[in-house]
Amino acid sequence: MKEEKILLAHGSGGKLSQKLIEEVMRPAFSNPALDEMHDGAKVTVNGAKLAFTTDSHVVKPLFFAGGDIGKLAVCGTVNDLAMTGAKALYLSAGFIIEEGFPQSDLLRVVDSMRQAAFQANVTIVTGDTKVVEKGAADGIYINTAGVGALIEGVNISPQRACSGQNIILTGSLGDHAVTIMAERHGLTLPVNITSDCAPLNGMIEELLYNVPEIAVLRDPTRGGLATVLNEVASQAQAGIIINEMDIPVNPEVMAVCDMLGYDPLYLANEGKAVIFVESVHTDKALAILKQHVYGRNAKVIGQVTKDPKGQVGLRTLVGGVRLLDMLPGDQLPRIC
Amino acid sequence: MKEEKILLAHGSGGKLSQKLIEEVMRPAFSNPALDEMHDGAKVTVNGAKLAFTTDSHVVKPLFFAGGDIGKLAVCGTVNDLAMTGAKALYLSAGFIIEEGFPQSDLLRVVDSMRQAAFQANVTIVTGDTKVVEKGAADGIYINTAGVGALIEGVNISPQRACSGQNIILTGSLGDHAVTIMAERHGLTLPVNITSDCAPLNGMIEELLYNVPEIAVLRDPTRGGLATVLNEVASQAQAGIIINEMDIPVNPEVMAVCDMLGYDPLYLANEGKAVIFVESVHTDKALAILKQHVYGRNAKVIGQVTKDPKGQVGLRTLVGGVRLLDMLPGDQLPRIC
Repeated sequence: MKEEKILLAHGSGGKLSQKLIEEVMRPAFSNPALDEMHDGAKVTVNGAKLAFTTDSHVVKPLFFAGGDIGKLAVCGTVNDLAMTGAKALYLSAGFIIEEGFPQSDLLRVVDSMRQAAFQANVTIVTGDTKVVEKGAADGIYINTAGVGALIEGVNISPQRACSGQNIILTGSLGDHAVTIMAERHGLTLPVNITSDCAPLNGMIEELLYNVPEIAVLRDPTRGGLATVLNEVASQAQAGIIINEMDIPVNPEVMAVCDMLGYDPLYLANEGKAVIFVESVHTDKALAILKQHVYGRNAKVIGQVTKDPKGQVGLRTLVGGVRLLDMLPGDQLPRIC
Repeated sequence: MKEEKILLAHGSGGKLSQKLIEEVMRPAFSNPALDEMHDGAKVTVNGAKLAFTTDSHVVKPLFFAGGDIGKLAVCGTVNDLAMTGAKALYLSAGFIIEEGFPQSDLLRVVDSMRQAAFQANVTIVTGDTKVVEKGAADGIYINTAGVGALIEGVNISPQRACSGQNIILTGSLGDHAVTIMAERHGLTLPVNITSDCAPLNGMIEELLYNVPEIAVLRDPTRGGLATVLNEVASQAQAGIIINEMDIPVNPEVMAVCDMLGYDPLYLANEGKAVIFVESVHTDKALAILKQHVYGRNAKVIGQVTKDPKGQVGLRTLVGGVRLLDMLPGDQLPRIC
């Protein structure tokens, strides 16, 4: 009997990640909060409704244009709380540090977390530091978990995706992944390509207070837009059609993708949100998003449809529709 | 200028850990919840009072007598919630897995987490899995964060240590650390030495419901009993005297310590609690603890005193008192 091993693609956010969750995690841990398979869990404590989420960060390199592992660790968890329909409040920080890691780099990372937490208006209230021998980690890994207060009157759930809703994307695709890839391979990129890593919670909270009818929120991180839309289509058993001509990608990012064979629809983003909302509320939602620096390029990129049920179609520039699958393998490991 | 590096001892729970917290973490993150420097933070969400805590687990080896990294990851966080005076409710699980890790080992670890969560009556509601390249981690690391409901009428805080209180220890010292050390070095130990890794929350909750006057709770993990007592003495600016003759250590554990030069007062435990309570409530507290399998050897090991202010004294078998310092360096890395 062949011994199955964990592969890099099991952490990609794509098909093998899904398989690992379905075959290993859910059979062990199944419960209503987990089974919703959202960016965060909705739970009740002492009568209060809150969101709870976690993410470990292993990005390589640790420092990159537009951010670093510390900023990413704060923004990643803050954004997951926002995508659950919660006001982000408190974070934990768990550090795993490799022996010999320069203390000056740790100070830089911690200061970056401080700044990001300040910007996101959240408080880091508890933490833990472990040190492992040289060679047992790669510099530093940071886990952040987060707690937020679910916003009254809001009910965000992938199951609420429903035919007729518009799908809004808050900005261009691929900036984070292309930046990381370029830094890792020593490519010289145009100066205007930087990670989009940002805390979206302020913008999303304002959106939810004003348009509580928002149905689904997701941030297209690992696996990219195509994977996230596939997850929603599958969970809601709805169809999704997006229009290639409406999907914003920076020309420089597109050029790198063309050169290296990456598809921006599968690239990770760290400062973008996908928002499902009924037509009647769409203009109001767009108006609110466009007032924010992280949403000024927000636009409708597609609709929820009846067909293809449980699947995602891309209406191409030449007019046909091709099915978009989830990320099949491992496009770029250690992207976040 | 010499570049300062992170050392294994920065993760030991002892003096260098303290220094790292004071010089790097607190200057960046200082806030009232964090500054209490407890096993978990007390926060308020939507009017509900809750505890929030995190721990990353990097224990080596992954499987050992009496437990494994999965059981440890659940019990460690459940116990930290209990020590904050909360009813443990929900956990997150963040996995960092090394490429090539056997899927069968992952299944074993996950099943162990499932069992421990069942025993502790908590639910794992959210999670995350990252995979790093071969050589960028050592098998698997697991972060768990936890959320619990603070128990009404209970106020656990190291600052509440106060002259006249008794100090209860719930059982013998050193079992976890000696087990790990033995497994790591291939020593053959008596069969009755196993890790004490256990969820203490059921016992502690019953204690708190019946004796809400309990002042301080801590679990003597990294750094051991001596380090934890030093932290409390320093935070409360109280003295602590413990009696060597009252401190329970299994004879087999003591024999290993004598042979290898370890002091059980500094060894990590994963299923023990230290409890500060006024004399008048001590008998009731002991009676409740002794009904539980994890507390049946509970006993008073010392008292809070006026002197030595902010320090810990050990009354030795021959009658003198010697000062016990915090763990100075790194007794045993990757113990949890």
